[in-house]
Amino acid sequence: RKSVSLPLKWFTIGQCWRYERMTRGRRREHYQWNMDIFGMPKVRAEAELIQAIVLLFERLGITSSDVGIRLSSRKVLQAVLDMYSVPQHLFTQVCVIVDKLGKLSREEIEKELISTGLSSEAVQGIIEVLSLKSLSKLEEVLGSGVEAVADLKKLFSLAEQYGYADWICFDASVVRGLAYYTGIVFEAFDREGELRAICGGGRYDRLLSTFGTEDVPACGFGFGDAVIVELLKEKGLLPDLPRQIDDIVFPLDEELEGPASSVASSLRKKGRSVDLVEDKRLKW
Amino acid sequence: RKSVSLPLKWFTIGQCWRYERMTRGRRREHYQWNMDIFGMPKVRAEAELIQAIVLLFERLGITSSDVGIRLSSRKVLQAVLDMYSVPQHLFTQVCVIVDKLGKLSREEIEKELISTGLSSEAVQGIIEVLSLKSLSKLEEVLGSGVEAVADLKKLFSLAEQYGYADWICFDASVVRGLAYYTGIVFEAFDREGELRAICGGGRYDRLLSTFGTEDVPACGFGFGDAVIVELLKEKGLLPDLPRQIDDIVFPLDEELEGPASSVASSLRKKGRSVDLVEDKRLKW
Repeated sequence: RKSVSLPLKWFTIGQCWRYERMTRGRRREHYQWNMDIFGMPKVRAEAELIQAIVLLFERLGITSSDVGIRLSSRKVLQAVLDMYSVPQHLFTQVCVIVDKLGKLSREEIEKELISTGLSSEAVQGIIEVLSLKSLSKLEEVLGSGVEAVADLKKLFSLAEQYGYADWICFDASVVRGLAYYTGIVFEAFDREGELRAICGGGRYDRLLSTFGTEDVPACGFGFGDAVIVELLKEKGLLPDLPRQIDDIVFPLDEELEGPASSVASSLRKKGRSVDLVEDKRLKW
Repeated sequence: RKSVSLPLKWFTIGQCWRYERMTRGRRREHYQWNMDIFGMPKVRAEAELIQAIVLLFERLGITSSDVGIRLSSRKVLQAVLDMYSVPQHLFTQVCVIVDKLGKLSREEIEKELISTGLSSEAVQGIIEVLSLKSLSKLEEVLGSGVEAVADLKKLFSLAEQYGYADWICFDASVVRGLAYYTGIVFEAFDREGELRAICGGGRYDRLLSTFGTEDVPACGFGFGDAVIVELLKEKGLLPDLPRQIDDIVFPLDEELEGPASSVASSLRKKGRSVDLVEDKRLKW
């Protein structure tokens, strides 16, 4: 077993497949940019991840009036469940259900929550808190001593320092669909509200132990190529990436084929990108 | 249906999987560089592909005394089969069998060939021609009017002009295992003979029609990452690719966390690669 020194920051851009119903921006096959930080327990890590996302948007010509990043913390929901003494083993189940807010009706969500064994007071409490869009309101409801509130306040204050505060907003309804998140969760969305989430991620401090190793504080995101391409097309920002060729070598007759090979070869050896063209007329 | 203008030259570097017995340099998962040229019927196209391979070797620090590229043509085997009036439908079957030369014993190969219905004279003729390592010897046996000989001579003369003649050698035993090749076939090998083929390819002028479209002259190669990495390790040439970081930003205490975020952010906005480090002592 190799050991790595922490913190570890990495990224991959891999080709991924899913076997699911296909919709706009959700294909069977796509490329996904993944970025993770291991070994940083504080929200500084999430702040770094979000900056990476914002920098990409900016480099693509997207502004904070096109796109926003909604964020919350799984600890918000945890605090509400604690208020109603909901047993711990229901936590992930509740997360997966409330992630469907906006996809299912409020009645359906309530029904699903009740069926897990929650009291109707707890269900009402959860749904009320999840509708909050302001951090000060959240502090009022949960109290300022709660970790969820402290984490979120710290993250917003770091965002100010990084200079991307106008990109992010608190939205308690963000929980993300994956069971393993434990802290901050976030997703980028188009402000016109026409597309699926552009990317999403969060903290997953207890995921690694499910693979048989020790837990390590961790957070990360996945950013697929499908939704962002839809958005770039819509905004007319899809970059035109022309073939990059430095030189074209073009023998004017068959006898010059050999010398053309030598010329192309020596240019390529110098690192130039060369196309060797045949069977064209001079007019071309 | 979109139409493309020919010739078309493309490459991909994709992640590939195979479900086969694993050996050194043959893993279940690997990345493969693929390069193809469509719409060029002459061996100029193969000459271009081979230059791309040689340029990669040179950039990795590999020389022509480390690695060679064996080449032949499927038309060689075709010419031998014509000499013995072997029916056309046996061609690909014979190719797949003789590709096992060097893996199976000569007796086993002979037995397999006989079982396809070939006469023992034809089998002896095939095995004799496939043992040839010299183009002039091949010309003696097949005659100079044969396409196989003309193609190979042209390719060797182009190789001189490109300046990579010392990398390539004629070897009639190269047929490659894939049924669809129709002309020039080639594979790169380590001269110490310890590894599997480093890459391989050839011309496949009749592959596209099997996908229901018109045939287009085509040739290409696949170059996996597994064998080349073995070779680079052996030669001590595996490049050390350090993390490329321009700046490290390091707040000396918690109060400097905010300003550190601003500094990292403005450096990153200028395109610099910045690591923001925390919880280190000044000594670090």
